[in-house]
Amino acid sequence: MTAQAPTETLGPEADLARVFDLAQQLRVDSVRASTSAGSGHPTSSLSAADLMAVLMTRHLRYDWDDPGNPANDHLVFSKGHASPLLYAMFRAAGVVAEDELLNTYRRFGARLEGHPTPVLPWVDVATGSLGQGIAYAVGIALAGRDLEGQPYRVWTLCGDSEMAEGSVWEAVDKAGRHRLANFTAIVDVNRLGQCGATELGWDTAAYARRIEAFDCRALTVDGHDVGAVDRALTTAADGKAPTVVIARTVKGRGVGEIADHEGWHGKPLPEELAGRAVAELGGVRHLLARGPRPPAGTQADRPPAGPVELPRYDVGEDVATRSAFGKALAALGARPDVVVLDAEVGNSTHAEDFKKAYPQRYFQTYIAEQQMIAAAVGMAARGYRPYAATFAAFLTRAHDFIRMAAVSRATLALSGSHCGVEIGADGPSQMGLEDLAMMRAVHGSTVLYPGDATSATALTAAMADLPGISYLRTTRGAYPVLYPADETFPVGGSKTPRRSDQDTVTLVGAGVTLHECLAAADQLADEGIRARVVDLYSVKPLDAETLARAARETGALVVAEDHHPEGGIGEAVRSALGAERLAPALTHLAVTVLPGSGTTAELLDEAGISRNHIVRAARALTGR
Amino acid sequence: MTAQAPTETLGPEADLARVFDLAQQLRVDSVRASTSAGSGHPTSSLSAADLMAVLMTRHLRYDWDDPGNPANDHLVFSKGHASPLLYAMFRAAGVVAEDELLNTYRRFGARLEGHPTPVLPWVDVATGSLGQGIAYAVGIALAGRDLEGQPYRVWTLCGDSEMAEGSVWEAVDKAGRHRLANFTAIVDVNRLGQCGATELGWDTAAYARRIEAFDCRALTVDGHDVGAVDRALTTAADGKAPTVVIARTVKGRGVGEIADHEGWHGKPLPEELAGRAVAELGGVRHLLARGPRPPAGTQADRPPAGPVELPRYDVGEDVATRSAFGKALAALGARPDVVVLDAEVGNSTHAEDFKKAYPQRYFQTYIAEQQMIAAAVGMAARGYRPYAATFAAFLTRAHDFIRMAAVSRATLALSGSHCGVEIGADGPSQMGLEDLAMMRAVHGSTVLYPGDATSATALTAAMADLPGISYLRTTRGAYPVLYPADETFPVGGSKTPRRSDQDTVTLVGAGVTLHECLAAADQLADEGIRARVVDLYSVKPLDAETLARAARETGALVVAEDHHPEGGIGEAVRSALGAERLAPALTHLAVTVLPGSGTTAELLDEAGISRNHIVRAARALTGR
Repeated sequence: MTAQAPTETLGPEADLARVFDLAQQLRVDSVRASTSAGSGHPTSSLSAADLMAVLMTRHLRYDWDDPGNPANDHLVFSKGHASPLLYAMFRAAGVVAEDELLNTYRRFGARLEGHPTPVLPWVDVATGSLGQGIAYAVGIALAGRDLEGQPYRVWTLCGDSEMAEGSVWEAVDKAGRHRLANFTAIVDVNRLGQCGATELGWDTAAYARRIEAFDCRALTVDGHDVGAVDRALTTAADGKAPTVVIARTVKGRGVGEIADHEGWHGKPLPEELAGRAVAELGGVRHLLARGPRPPAGTQADRPPAGPVELPRYDVGEDVATRSAFGKALAALGARPDVVVLDAEVGNSTHAEDFKKAYPQRYFQTYIAEQQMIAAAVGMAARGYRPYAATFAAFLTRAHDFIRMAAVSRATLALSGSHCGVEIGADGPSQMGLEDLAMMRAVHGSTVLYPGDATSATALTAAMADLPGISYLRTTRGAYPVLYPADETFPVGGSKTPRRSDQDTVTLVGAGVTLHECLAAADQLADEGIRARVVDLYSVKPLDAETLARAARETGALVVAEDHHPEGGIGEAVRSALGAERLAPALTHLAVTVLPGSGTTAELLDEAGISRNHIVRAARALTGR
Repeated sequence: MTAQAPTETLGPEADLARVFDLAQQLRVDSVRASTSAGSGHPTSSLSAADLMAVLMTRHLRYDWDDPGNPANDHLVFSKGHASPLLYAMFRAAGVVAEDELLNTYRRFGARLEGHPTPVLPWVDVATGSLGQGIAYAVGIALAGRDLEGQPYRVWTLCGDSEMAEGSVWEAVDKAGRHRLANFTAIVDVNRLGQCGATELGWDTAAYARRIEAFDCRALTVDGHDVGAVDRALTTAADGKAPTVVIARTVKGRGVGEIADHEGWHGKPLPEELAGRAVAELGGVRHLLARGPRPPAGTQADRPPAGPVELPRYDVGEDVATRSAFGKALAALGARPDVVVLDAEVGNSTHAEDFKKAYPQRYFQTYIAEQQMIAAAVGMAARGYRPYAATFAAFLTRAHDFIRMAAVSRATLALSGSHCGVEIGADGPSQMGLEDLAMMRAVHGSTVLYPGDATSATALTAAMADLPGISYLRTTRGAYPVLYPADETFPVGGSKTPRRSDQDTVTLVGAGVTLHECLAAADQLADEGIRARVVDLYSVKPLDAETLARAARETGALVVAEDHHPEGGIGEAVRSALGAERLAPALTHLAVTVLPGSGTTAELLDEAGISRNHIVRAARALTGR
């Protein structure tokens, strides 16, 4: 296929009749791309083509020659499955060739993936898990207005099915609460989901009531009336209010044989039908759409980073790692790229310490963990280094968002406090006992679990320069500082606070169990058993070398973790040793009970991970 | 402390002045219990005491002598941290003694845990992770009306902070959509969350707008005016509409020194202040509250289970395990306790097959995975055996609900389809690559991953009788049936479809990688390498014995899984072997790349888990 020169360039002043032609081109290309790929969602693209044609010619202020222009508007396809439409827009913008669209979409190795990801320079965030794009858009809008001071607008295209996701209402709520006048969501109400009619069908009034109740402006339009759409988007861009355009549309619009028909979700048109559809849509076009350019940026140069002076602790003083996290965060605020997000537990996670020092870079998302992570991803897409913190247990609420953040290639630092049975009386609902498994399994993640304030401080600081998703697990209670302030804690390393040439067993712990291991080692020493103690503050990557050496030198290990047995430290250690062809005598102590309330000591003991259990296991392993 | 006989019994006709006395008793007991425990949330209890006093004397139709009475109303504390209030109500009902309340609350081994769990006979579901109780209540209300045909009402007490959770709006939406006239939520709008003012403060009109926009009836009251509360609850119980009572209250109400003060969330009153508070509240009382009894149940005896005739497949025919799951579900519908929940992907997961046969036991929750799991937990609490299915990737959306379902001791069967890179062109947003780690780490879970239709059928059926949370991972594509229909697949077992005494390597797979292992074994056989193949259809519990035998007999293993390397099959195998003191030569093949689009074969190969990679690994291990 040879490159086809555009027949005409549509600018912001283009007549609406020509904009409709562009919409037809987007439809034709959506049909062609998905039929060629043999999969995809053409009907979900056809319904939104008029909306997007109007947006890209007249409202989206975007420098297609410089996607990095900081004043560019942002467009997030929350309905990521409408990727044929998005990619057809890229072709219309002249940045993706017809050949690439038709011959690489959904193919192996192609950047035009089944759902959009930031491997494309015009895509900020990965979408495809529904109810997420709109939430990221809120984060980008917050960054634009409150961090960057940029004039850009953020536009997001939502499907109607995804409006059933609670996360959408967290997002709309935050758009309303923050009065994000630079935020516009466009809901493509095409009535049909994957399994038939959606919950609200074409009841656009119901959507409007909900949007308004969540304090955003609702504009209801016929999504195929390009004039009405243009007027709505003009209003949306008036800078007065966060806006949701509720567009009544027809799924498969423009192709009579399938329009508004059930059974066509996620199905490409067979070749023959595709041919008829292209003809019905007026055939292949080669319009170039170049809408308004971004306004000159008002980019205030980000202030230079001040010196980061991390707190120092004296060995032996009792400090909770969550407290050290908060104080380190506050110190890191000297870096102007660091932002902090809370889910209304900042006085528990100690993220609040940052707020006192840098209130303008502290975002309270209230108890909406999904939106907390989404806002962090949006800010990360704008170059910030977000730290988001809640209880470790409640990060599970945002698991899908964390998973997708990795697909977005986002860099963010998460902290989960109140891990394990250590928390005591509050009981299992508040105990993070699955978080290590969750966070280790995230693509490209780093998982850190400091046992004292010095290491918590160093690792909190290290996270500001780690790529990808990093996670810091912190503990509720205060425990003695173990390391002097100048000690270093490389990611992937470990510490060996107890060690001798006569060690006959190694006790491996992290967080609270590190302290239990140290106490156990003391007791074992009294009994004449020399125990090495390894502090696995870096759970992923793991210091396999030190563990292997310990296994070889001592021959026996006790691994104790305040987490369920699966997916945590024990399995990580076993795997690391197995990879070295080592199968030492190893006792894995983890939380196998369903805990209740109690003191820390009682619950550690009941769970079998206390110093007593470690001593017992070590005795058994050493034959004593 | 000696048991104190009640001074007076308040029945449904009790004067409202006496009901207020009961509220003061609940306050006094909330203060005493939390001060005695040294932790807890008295101020969050004080705000709701009037609401609960009115509810329990005049509206909650409950047979305290028989918590198993199927016509009993249900009360779910969505704000589970107000447990002092709930337990004070149990004392007022005469089912918990004063001694137990004051001397065991939050203590080790006690049933009066920090947050309520079903170890108490009057508690249906565990709460404490906010935004969940209201969602469970919707499930119980659905069960009562649509499954049991019982006249009970479901009441749930929510906090105002938790209204920021998207899951709450999924729940309100479903209450509205299903017109659950037996459902009433009471929102305790005390204005103060953990970190200060809530998002909406005392803007009860804003709450009302949102509730009404989500199609429930909103009633706004002064939550300390017992007469007004009584009228609102009377209206709520009129059987006309799902209702949310928005009660304006004061946190810490009744104790002047702390009422409406910030900084008192989750803090017990110090002894002296508690003493003054009890005095201010009128001192210790011993009122017994016995409200209305439940109406005579209309319990239609559940129809007897018909014979379950599971589908049978011929060895060699191509069938997707997700398809086998759906057909097995439809067969299991002969059991009247089996119910199925979908999140608008039933035509992908094949859960929809059940709908065709048993539409009255099929619940469409649309794209609201949290509510899907919550409704399942609610139905499980009523004795049903729910199966809930969506894409494996999207079960992560409900991780916190799944975790809490285990704390609720719920029995439910989950199925996640479209696991791994196997799905092909749709790309990473749709690929379940973390689900095994997530589900293995759930307390008491069972994790199953069938490789063919016969095993998928048997395991789907087995799940109907498994305790706790069970999970079936299914695959998108169709693969040959491997086992004859009469083969059995015990949970905790495995199959060894290839085996000889000359095996020099064992290939371990499950799901799609089982087929890759079989193909690899064929190719290796051509090269003169005899490979054993193990089908790990039961990932948790794991057949450690067969794996250990294979390690001993063949000396080398290749484990291939369509999942990230952490927390899945590879680590489970390594741990099982390590526990047997075995460290065979083992190559663990898992998805370490961030995949894009492509065909199944391309993506399996790129991820390094295809037959080619298995062959290469086996060759290397066997020195060929």
